[in-house]
Amino acid sequence: MVVVAPSAQVHAEAKQRLDGLAKPLGSLGRLEELGAWLAACQGVCPPTELNRVSAILLAGDHGVVGSGVASYPAEVTPAMVYALVGGVAGMSVLAAQQQVPLTVYDIAVNSDLPELSPKLRAQVQRYKIGRGSADISQADALSDIEVAQALCVGDQLAQVEKDAGTQLVIVGDLGIGNTTPSAALIASRLGLNAGAVTGRGAGLNDEQLAGKIAVIDAALARARAAGVDQDAGAKRRLAALGSADIAVAVALMAGCAKRGIPVLLDGVISLAEALLAQELAPGAAAWFCAGHRSPEPGASVALQALGLEPLLELGMRLGEGSGAMTALPLLRSGIAVIRNMALLTDLMG
Amino acid sequence: MVVVAPSAQVHAEAKQRLDGLAKPLGSLGRLEELGAWLAACQGVCPPTELNRVSAILLAGDHGVVGSGVASYPAEVTPAMVYALVGGVAGMSVLAAQQQVPLTVYDIAVNSDLPELSPKLRAQVQRYKIGRGSADISQADALSDIEVAQALCVGDQLAQVEKDAGTQLVIVGDLGIGNTTPSAALIASRLGLNAGAVTGRGAGLNDEQLAGKIAVIDAALARARAAGVDQDAGAKRRLAALGSADIAVAVALMAGCAKRGIPVLLDGVISLAEALLAQELAPGAAAWFCAGHRSPEPGASVALQALGLEPLLELGMRLGEGSGAMTALPLLRSGIAVIRNMALLTDLMG
Repeated sequence: MVVVAPSAQVHAEAKQRLDGLAKPLGSLGRLEELGAWLAACQGVCPPTELNRVSAILLAGDHGVVGSGVASYPAEVTPAMVYALVGGVAGMSVLAAQQQVPLTVYDIAVNSDLPELSPKLRAQVQRYKIGRGSADISQADALSDIEVAQALCVGDQLAQVEKDAGTQLVIVGDLGIGNTTPSAALIASRLGLNAGAVTGRGAGLNDEQLAGKIAVIDAALARARAAGVDQDAGAKRRLAALGSADIAVAVALMAGCAKRGIPVLLDGVISLAEALLAQELAPGAAAWFCAGHRSPEPGASVALQALGLEPLLELGMRLGEGSGAMTALPLLRSGIAVIRNMALLTDLMG
Repeated sequence: MVVVAPSAQVHAEAKQRLDGLAKPLGSLGRLEELGAWLAACQGVCPPTELNRVSAILLAGDHGVVGSGVASYPAEVTPAMVYALVGGVAGMSVLAAQQQVPLTVYDIAVNSDLPELSPKLRAQVQRYKIGRGSADISQADALSDIEVAQALCVGDQLAQVEKDAGTQLVIVGDLGIGNTTPSAALIASRLGLNAGAVTGRGAGLNDEQLAGKIAVIDAALARARAAGVDQDAGAKRRLAALGSADIAVAVALMAGCAKRGIPVLLDGVISLAEALLAQELAPGAAAWFCAGHRSPEPGASVALQALGLEPLLELGMRLGEGSGAMTALPLLRSGIAVIRNMALLTDLMG
C-alpha cells in the first residue's frame, strides 16, 4: 500500500470556500489552513466535525535506562500505565475533557502489571513484543524479527482505526527513557550528533544531560559502525536505535497515512516516529499535523525536517500525547469556521 | 473601588498542588501557569471548571474611516452585527463551539439596524452613546461627557457579569475602522509614533497602510498639542483618540478586575483597551490573560507593555474576540489538569 496524498482538489475547493466566507481574506490565519487540510484529508468540503477521534497510547520499556539517561527508574513505567487507565494521568484528564477515548497498548512493559484490577486490566490491550529494548549504547534495540512484528502490529492498529471510522488519530508514548531512542533516531536519520537533538527529558540536570548525550553518541557510533547511516531505512534504524513501542507507532502512523486517516502529532517521541514513518512510507507526512513544540531540541529539529509548523508552544513536556490532545480544539475550531460561517453570497442573497 | 490582586496565597497553594501532581515538575508548562492563575483569580484551589464564560461584543463606528483608514466602508458594521446575532459570524461559530453565550451591545453603530428581525433585535442590547466617534485626525473622538457615560456603561456591564456569577469574560469589538483608534491609543500611552504600532487591519495594501500611518500620526500630533501626553490619563486619552465602544470596553475590563472576574484578551483592539484599563485602574492587568498574538504590530507592543505572553500565535486577525475564544480551551485544560490529575501521594497511598 502506498500513501496517496490528501485530495488537492478538495483542498482547492476548501480554499475557495474559505475565501468566500464573510470575513477579510485570510483573517482566520491558521484556522483556515487546518480547515482546508482536514477537508482535503476527509475528501469532502466542508469537512465533517471531529467526533470520532482516537488516542492510542503505546507503552514500553527501554534498556538504555540502565545507562542512566532518565530521571526516574524503569519501575515507574507500570505506575504510569495504572494512572492512565485509572483516568488520573495528565493525558487521561485532557482526553476526558476533549471527550476522546484512550486505548492503552502494552507493547513492551517490563512488568505483568500485577496491580491492575480486573476491570482496569481489560482496558490494557496486550500485544507484547518483549519486555523492553536492549540498551542501545551497547547493542541493537530489537532483532529484525521484533521490528517486523512491531511494524505488523502498528499497521494492524491502523486498520482497527480505519474499521472503526476514526477521523483523527493521536499517538502517545509512555515509558521511562523514551526520549533517548527518540533523540537517537532523529539524529541518525538526519546525520546529526546527539548534542543537536538531546534534551533534559523529564528533568535531567546539566551533568545528567551530558551523560545522556554521551550515551546517545555511543549508540549512534555503534549504529554507524554497523552500517546504519542516514539512508539505512526505517527498519534497520528501528532495530539499531528504536524500541518496540516506537516501532509500533511508526507503522501505525504510516498505516494511518496509507488509509487516509490524519494524525495529530505530539512532542519529541511522536516527531521521531513521524520522521521514521515518512522514511518508511514516503508521503506520509502530508497526513500529519504538528500539535505542539516541546522544549526537547530534537522536536524542533524533527519539525523542521518534516516541514511542519506546530500549533502550540506552551513548554509542555509530559509526553503521553498530552500536547497533541491540548491542540485538538484548534482543529475542531478550524472545522467549525469552514462549516458554519456564512458565505458572503448568502449574506448578500 | 480599587483593584485587589488575585490571591497570592491561593496561587502559592496551587503551585504546591501542581508540584505534587503525578508528573515531572513543571512538565505541563503553561497549562500549569493557567491553572494557578485561575485558582488565584477564583480564590480557591483547585479552581472550579469554567462553565460560566461570557463573551461581550461591543459594536461602534469610527469617524476616522472617513479619512480612508479601512478596507471596508462603514456601512459594513451593521452587516457584521447581523451576522453575529444570526450565529454565522466567525465569533458566533467559535463561541457556539465552546458553548459560550454571546451578548452584543450596540454602543455607537451609525445605524438603527433596520434589517434585524424582531427576534434578533432582542439579542442586541442598546446602550447607544452617539452614532460613531469623530474623525480623530481632525477632532476629539468623544466629548468628556460621552467618555464619562461610556465608562459608566462599561462598569455597569461588569456588575451585570458579577451578578450573573460569570467566571471569565471575553470582550470583543466590532466596527469598521476599529484598529485605527486602537493603534492611536497604544502609541499615545507608550509615547510611540504610528509607524511602530500600525498594521494592515482587515487587509490594507502598502499605499493604504502608509495613509493610515499618516492619519494616526496626525491624530497623535493633534492630541499631544492638546496636552494628551503619556501621562494624560485614560479618560483624556479616550476622549482624544478613542471611541465609545472602546471606552466601554476599557471600563468593562477595569470593572471586571475590580470585581475579581478574570478577562481573556483578544487582539490589538482588546490589547489597547487592556492597556487603558490598566491606566484607569492600576493593577487591573493582573486579571488579564492574553489569548493570542495578532499580526498587528500594536498588539505585540501592547503585550510587552502589559507584561503578557499570549497563548496562541496563529495569524488570526478577524477581531470580534475570535482569538480569545480560540484560546479558551487552553484555560479549560489548565483547570482540568490541576483539578483532576492524581497527586503523587494518592498514588503512593
